Amino acid sequence: MPVSLADLGEVGVIRRAVRFCPSVSPLLVRGVGDDAAIIRPSGQRHLLLTTDLLVEHIDFNLNGWTLDRVGEKALAVNVSDVAAMGGRPTLFTVGLAIPARARPAQVDALYRGLGRAARRYGVALAGGDLSASPSGWSIEITLLGEVKPGQALTRSGAEVGDRLCVTGTLGDSGAGLDLLRANTSRRTGLGAATRSLPSRAARFLVERHQVPTPRVAQGRALASRGLATAAIDLSDGLASDLRRLCEASGVGAEVDLRALPFSSELLTYARAVKRDPATYALTSGEDFELLVTVAPANLARARSLNVDGVPLTDIGSILPRRAGLRIIDRRGRRSRLTASGFEHFR
Amino acid sequence: MPVSLADLGEVGVIRRAVRFCPSVSPLLVRGVGDDAAIIRPSGQRHLLLTTDLLVEHIDFNLNGWTLDRVGEKALAVNVSDVAAMGGRPTLFTVGLAIPARARPAQVDALYRGLGRAARRYGVALAGGDLSASPSGWSIEITLLGEVKPGQALTRSGAEVGDRLCVTGTLGDSGAGLDLLRANTSRRTGLGAATRSLPSRAARFLVERHQVPTPRVAQGRALASRGLATAAIDLSDGLASDLRRLCEASGVGAEVDLRALPFSSELLTYARAVKRDPATYALTSGEDFELLVTVAPANLARARSLNVDGVPLTDIGSILPRRAGLRIIDRRGRRSRLTASGFEHFR
Repeated sequence: MPVSLADLGEVGVIRRAVRFCPSVSPLLVRGVGDDAAIIRPSGQRHLLLTTDLLVEHIDFNLNGWTLDRVGEKALAVNVSDVAAMGGRPTLFTVGLAIPARARPAQVDALYRGLGRAARRYGVALAGGDLSASPSGWSIEITLLGEVKPGQALTRSGAEVGDRLCVTGTLGDSGAGLDLLRANTSRRTGLGAATRSLPSRAARFLVERHQVPTPRVAQGRALASRGLATAAIDLSDGLASDLRRLCEASGVGAEVDLRALPFSSELLTYARAVKRDPATYALTSGEDFELLVTVAPANLARARSLNVDGVPLTDIGSILPRRAGLRIIDRRGRRSRLTASGFEHFR
Repeated sequence: MPVSLADLGEVGVIRRAVRFCPSVSPLLVRGVGDDAAIIRPSGQRHLLLTTDLLVEHIDFNLNGWTLDRVGEKALAVNVSDVAAMGGRPTLFTVGLAIPARARPAQVDALYRGLGRAARRYGVALAGGDLSASPSGWSIEITLLGEVKPGQALTRSGAEVGDRLCVTGTLGDSGAGLDLLRANTSRRTGLGAATRSLPSRAARFLVERHQVPTPRVAQGRALASRGLATAAIDLSDGLASDLRRLCEASGVGAEVDLRALPFSSELLTYARAVKRDPATYALTSGEDFELLVTVAPANLARARSLNVDGVPLTDIGSILPRRAGLRIIDRRGRRSRLTASGFEHFR
C-alpha cells in the first residue's frame, strides 16, 4: 500500500476509487476517465437531479464515525431525495476535498462505503473531482435518477383534506446523534442515562443516524400507482420539512403527535433520558423517512402497500392555508406548531 | 440588507441566489425548490455530466480575488469540460460550503458571478445544497450538457498521424497566477520585474487566470463537422493533459515548442521575468483551451473554421505509443517530455 497520497497522485486515487465503486451502467456510454460522462437517457423518462454536501465538523465528526460510514451516508441522503420524487436513482458523481494529512487507506474506506451504498441502491459512479483540503474532509454527491413523465412526486401537490402520512419511524436519528455526542463529550449530560441503555438499542439508534435507509421502493410504489399527491423526505426534522411542503402546496396542516410512529428503541431511550420522543421527531433532522400526502379515498390502498414491511402511518391532515401549522398534543390539546428543525446558519 | 446569514437562514440564502442566477430552462419541468429537479431531456440527445470543485486556500485565495470572480470561474471550468466533449452546456447545480463568519453580501457576490457566467453560457441553475463551513469557502458545481449521439469528442480517439492542435494561446493563466502571487507576497521574487510590466498586459494575464474562456463554440464546431478525433481541455498544463489524452488513446506524441501560440502579453511578461513562455504552457494549469487531434486531411478545414476569431494552431503530431511523449525545443533538438503539470497531492 502506498504510504501517502503524493505517491498515488490524483490519477492513482481515482483508479483506486473505481475499484471500490460500481462504474458500469447500461445508461453510461462513457463513464469515469474523460472530461465528462456521456449518458444515454432511458427513452421516455424524465431525469431527476439532486446534490448534497457533507462537511466534516459540521455534518459529521470523525469521533464516533468511520469514513466508510460517511461515504455510505453521503450517497444515501442523495438517494433519499430521489426517493421523495418517486424516482429510481441511476448515476452519481463525487466531489471530494481530502485533507493533506490523509492516508490512502482513509480514502479507500470512504470509497468502500460509497461502493457499498451504490450496490445497495443500484447506482453507478459516472465521474468526479478531487481537491486537496486545507482543513477537513468534504464530500459532495450529485445523483441522477429517472421517473416516468407525470409520475414524479413534488412538494406542491398537497390538497386540503388530504391525509398526512410518514414511512417508518421518526426521531431515531436525532437520538442516535445524541448518543454519539454523549460518547464523545460530557457536555450533553446524557452520559449516565445512556450508559443504562441496552447496547442493542443504542446501536440501532446510532445506525439510524449514520446509515439512513432511503425509502426508494416506497416512493416508487406510491408514485407509480398515483397514490400520493405530494412528498418530501425528512432531512431537517418534521417541523421544518412539513413547513416546506405546506408552503410549496399553499396549504396548512395539523399533526397529531399521539399518532407519530416511534421505534421501541427510541421509546426506551426517551424514557431513560426523560425526553419527549415527539421532540426528536419534530426538531431532529436526518430520519430520511418520507412525508407524503394522500387523498382520503386512496389512504387504505396506500397503507396496504406495506412495501418491504415498512409501515405508512397516518399522522394528520392537510388544512386550508389560513389554518397554519398545528399540533394535537398528548392530552388532545390543539396548539400552533412553533418548533423548527435543523438550520445550518443559526 | 440582513446583517447575518443567521437572519437569512438557508431558505433566504437560496431565495437570494435565484435572484442572481437564471433558473428557467425549456429542459426544466421543475427546478430549484423541490427534493430534486425534474428534467425533460432533449429528444435524441446524449447527456454530458461533469463536476468540478474549487476550494479556498487551494484553488483560490481571497487575496487578489473577489467572490464574484470565484463564482464565475467555478462555472466556467465546468463549461470547459462540456466544451472538450463537443457539447452544449445546459443545467447546473451548486454545492456551497459557507464560512460561518461570511456576510450575506459575500454570498450574493458569489451567486452574482455564477449568474453572469450562467447567462454568458446559456445555462440555468437547477438545484443545489448549502452547508456551513468550519474553515474557508468551497464551491462544487455539477454541470449537464448535451450532444448528438456519436458526435461527442473523447480523449481516446487520437490516431497515429493525426495533427495535434490547440485553440487560443497557452501559458497566460500561469503567468496571471504568478502576478497575483507577486502582488500578495514577496516570496516569488517577481515583484520588481512585474512592476515594470504595462498594467494592461498584467490585467490581461490575471483575467485569463481568473475568468477563463471555455471554448464551447470551437468544440461544438469541430464535433458537429466530425473534424476532431479526440479532445481534452487544458486544465492542468499541456504536459499533463497531453499525457492523459495519449494514455486514453494508446498513442505517443511530439510537440514542437516553436509552434506553441503565445499572447503578446505573455511574451512581454516572460521577457520581463526572464522565463521561457513554453514552461508556462507545459506546466501551468488552467488555460482552459482545447487540445484536439485532427486527421491531416481535415486540418485545413478545421483551422479555417476560425470560430469567433479564435485560432487553432498545429503544434505537433500523434506518434505510435512506443515513441512516448517528445518535444522539439527552440533550437530544433528532440528530447523526451519530462515536465508535468499541476497535481493536487504533491
